[in-house]
Amino acid sequence: MRVLGIDPGLRNLGWGLIDVNGSRLSHVANGICHSSGTDLAARLLSLYDQLTDILHRYTPEAAAVEQTFVNKDGAGTLKLGQARGIALLVPAQFGLAVGEYSPNTVKKTVVGVGHAAKEQVAHMVKVQLPGVELAGPDAADALAVAICHAHHARSTTMLADAVERASA
Amino acid sequence: MRVLGIDPGLRNLGWGLIDVNGSRLSHVANGICHSSGTDLAARLLSLYDQLTDILHRYTPEAAAVEQTFVNKDGAGTLKLGQARGIALLVPAQFGLAVGEYSPNTVKKTVVGVGHAAKEQVAHMVKVQLPGVELAGPDAADALAVAICHAHHARSTTMLADAVERASA
Repeated sequence: MRVLGIDPGLRNLGWGLIDVNGSRLSHVANGICHSSGTDLAARLLSLYDQLTDILHRYTPEAAAVEQTFVNKDGAGTLKLGQARGIALLVPAQFGLAVGEYSPNTVKKTVVGVGHAAKEQVAHMVKVQLPGVELAGPDAADALAVAICHAHHARSTTMLADAVERASA
Repeated sequence: MRVLGIDPGLRNLGWGLIDVNGSRLSHVANGICHSSGTDLAARLLSLYDQLTDILHRYTPEAAAVEQTFVNKDGAGTLKLGQARGIALLVPAQFGLAVGEYSPNTVKKTVVGVGHAAKEQVAHMVKVQLPGVELAGPDAADALAVAICHAHHARSTTMLADAVERASA
């Protein structure tokens, strides 16, 4: 199964793709979509086009987006929300179910603790995806979201299998 | 010139179309796009598809979106931001420049005062677009945004004309 992880942002939207084979994970690609300028609609369209290209090129079968940390900065939350709308829309257009994970869940899954530093996340992503070259911190976070989704999807499958065996 | 106004929201996204001929405005259509369910990505995709249909059917030449009121409710701001991302994206995909107006600017333009009640906005929309039947308050707000954009676009054109005449 190929999984796309997205760390949404209006200026820098991180993305990362991994292949999942049982418990074995391997890196496919990662990068950062940039949007600049003052015209908000044009910036969102630029993110949309870049993300659509990535979906076309790599054809993932599952996607997950980091849940946004909501803070007291309303203007910042709104900007992030607009970028996040695009991050959720594009995989849905390709027929993918889109998982959502809080930053704490991602860190707990990838690093083992909920309040890990960004460097620690990048380090554990490198450990779990040998040979990966990270395009930047946002791309590392996106790969961490993909890894998190792979783990949770696997737990769900294993649970379903166990239930099936027990009822057989 | 045909203008599309949008009042973004995740559950109810209001839209309204007017034709502008000099200072004469006429109503084309208005309505509300609904999205329900718990899957956020699917809801955003539903709004995207409905809005895309409207652009295809009515082929507006300009669009404007109400600027979101940012408050202390971070979760609400984020939801609105996600819907707003879609509202800005779709017209941009059709090559339209997307204007943005604060609720106060819209009310000042349509009603004459910045802090008008919703009923007053709906009333003035009906006065300015004789014969209109409003699909609901969100559709009235969307038509108000379209009217506001028509007025501002006209002022800008008149200003450009005056500058041209002065320099001729």
